[in-house]
Amino acid sequence: MATAGKVIKCRAAVAWEPNAPLVIEEIEVAPPQENEIRIKVIATGVCHTDLYHLYEGKHEGGFPAVLGHEGAGIVESVGPRVTEFKPGDKVIPLFVSQCRECRFCKNPKSNHCERSWACERYAVMCDTDSRFTCRGKVILQFMGTSTFSEYTVMNQMAVAKIHDDARLDRVCLLGCGISTGYGAAINTAKVEPGSVCAVFGLGAVGLAAVMGCKNAGASRIIAVDIDEKKFEKAKILGATDCVNPKAHTKPINEVLAGITNGGVDFSLECVGNVGVMRSALESCVKGWGVSVLVGWTDLSDFSARPIQLISGKTWKGSLFGGFKGKDDVPKLVLDYMSGHVKLDEFVTHTMKLDQVNDAIHLMKTGGCIRTVLNVSSK
Amino acid sequence: MATAGKVIKCRAAVAWEPNAPLVIEEIEVAPPQENEIRIKVIATGVCHTDLYHLYEGKHEGGFPAVLGHEGAGIVESVGPRVTEFKPGDKVIPLFVSQCRECRFCKNPKSNHCERSWACERYAVMCDTDSRFTCRGKVILQFMGTSTFSEYTVMNQMAVAKIHDDARLDRVCLLGCGISTGYGAAINTAKVEPGSVCAVFGLGAVGLAAVMGCKNAGASRIIAVDIDEKKFEKAKILGATDCVNPKAHTKPINEVLAGITNGGVDFSLECVGNVGVMRSALESCVKGWGVSVLVGWTDLSDFSARPIQLISGKTWKGSLFGGFKGKDDVPKLVLDYMSGHVKLDEFVTHTMKLDQVNDAIHLMKTGGCIRTVLNVSSK
Repeated sequence: MATAGKVIKCRAAVAWEPNAPLVIEEIEVAPPQENEIRIKVIATGVCHTDLYHLYEGKHEGGFPAVLGHEGAGIVESVGPRVTEFKPGDKVIPLFVSQCRECRFCKNPKSNHCERSWACERYAVMCDTDSRFTCRGKVILQFMGTSTFSEYTVMNQMAVAKIHDDARLDRVCLLGCGISTGYGAAINTAKVEPGSVCAVFGLGAVGLAAVMGCKNAGASRIIAVDIDEKKFEKAKILGATDCVNPKAHTKPINEVLAGITNGGVDFSLECVGNVGVMRSALESCVKGWGVSVLVGWTDLSDFSARPIQLISGKTWKGSLFGGFKGKDDVPKLVLDYMSGHVKLDEFVTHTMKLDQVNDAIHLMKTGGCIRTVLNVSSK
Repeated sequence: MATAGKVIKCRAAVAWEPNAPLVIEEIEVAPPQENEIRIKVIATGVCHTDLYHLYEGKHEGGFPAVLGHEGAGIVESVGPRVTEFKPGDKVIPLFVSQCRECRFCKNPKSNHCERSWACERYAVMCDTDSRFTCRGKVILQFMGTSTFSEYTVMNQMAVAKIHDDARLDRVCLLGCGISTGYGAAINTAKVEPGSVCAVFGLGAVGLAAVMGCKNAGASRIIAVDIDEKKFEKAKILGATDCVNPKAHTKPINEVLAGITNGGVDFSLECVGNVGVMRSALESCVKGWGVSVLVGWTDLSDFSARPIQLISGKTWKGSLFGGFKGKDDVPKLVLDYMSGHVKLDEFVTHTMKLDQVNDAIHLMKTGGCIRTVLNVSSK
């Protein structure tokens, strides 16, 4: 492309400081260096993790930065030694890289990567090199991705090449939330055919977990949320029962034990709340119940009584649903194209990059499942 | 035998009240009723769980009682409908029964039993029928077993028949502590060949966990205890490294991370201390580390930061090492007889039933690994 090798000036939503609205700015995006590719971001979801870092996290040295980590785009140009990508390829940026060389990448049990932003530096906004500047200042790349920008630059080990016909304003959601919830059910909990499941929290991650339980063959999927407006979508995605804990005087684990012969086989916590994590574990049947932490929080401890585990339950967790990004995200895209994985149902709002603060407000107030921002025109 | 069908008067150590020494009394043991067998107890270990209930637990309605749950004996007589046992059979009482009919017994994932004392009534000393009386009072059976008595009566679903040549003053330890630690490594953690393991706490349970790691083929077994006197025995049972946390200024998880490339594959908490539970989880490598709660406590919460699980670790626990008692205890006895499972190394003291308070004192002060009480002569 005509821009290859040159600095691109483009628009991005810059987080200059924590706890403040993002600002749409013109930024400079340097050309990709060795092993890097520059991506024209077409669409991005707005995920709670963006908010977490902006409003709730520890903000350790992480500003100014461009947020956004749930995107999809088209390769604009590639740097030296890039072998896997060429301009025009459709891609999804990965906040968990897959270098294919480290001990984690080589181990089928894990989707970690020793060279990944997410696995090594999750407490920090970003400490890698950045290709962004704005008004003379270096702007950091959030989670190594920064999809709230018309262009971003990434190492090729953290990018998945996807099918040419993929609809980017849908498959962008596979860059984080949907994969996280879906994979937590399929890969981490390893939900079994005929099992009884409970999903706590019916945001995009929780609804994706419901879909994962259904696709894994669960016979009963109990969707739990204090917002009953979420129940309709949960049923569309596979929930067989919906329970509002506030509609009961007994604790939710006792409610679920009462309707499931002592507890569920699998529970997934998709809120990011340590109290809900405890309830989700306590809702499992003893002997073999598995509870998975899916929702993100790290500001306080989660806890339970030891007998909860000694009685034979298992407490697990995963990052990005346990999917190895380069291997699995392209398959998830095909699963969407074949109808096996649903994405359209998750998109409740579509906006432009300029409206990113409106999208954030919507997410904070629980008014959406997912908002997709159209970042660049194709 | 001549005593069949009659009340037997015999000696037992009675716990009349919490926080007081046991009292050697003459008690009456009624004949076995339907599905029950009366057992002449030959030998019993003294386990920390006995102390827990006597000194630390909640003592919910559980006195007076006869403690002891790590015994071995010989069938004296059987009640109506008993098909599996005959007088003279060597047996080990099980505090986790195996009825073979409930959903837990039928599920290979679990060793729970819906009819078990331990699974349903762990917070209570005993609320089943008792066959014991003393001075006109009903004396409860602790954990359904009560091996601190020359005779006890148990339902046949909670007794394992073992090899006729088994040495009862050794295989009694398979009734609790050794099976618990060994099985936690083999069955619950599922320690893999070539893996790196850490065992926290080197009492009988922890030493058995070390042996389990070794028999599972671990390449490195790090034994952790603040009492360095325990290290010699740990090495005999398979430990390759011994670490005293008090000898380091850094937290133990950082010490272990430093010598294991980021953490161990499997860790086993064999203390029953919620702080150690946290350390054991934090000592695991991200991505696939598995930590198991083995030590018993239930007086306070265990806790950790969510990232510990979200980073791909698993927190598990088990009761009685995940062994299904009737199926597996007879096999463990054979494993001892063949030398694959060691028991002799665990017995540091041998005493008579009269000396039970001395044995309890030894355990409280950490002066023993296991004391075996010779209860009756054969």
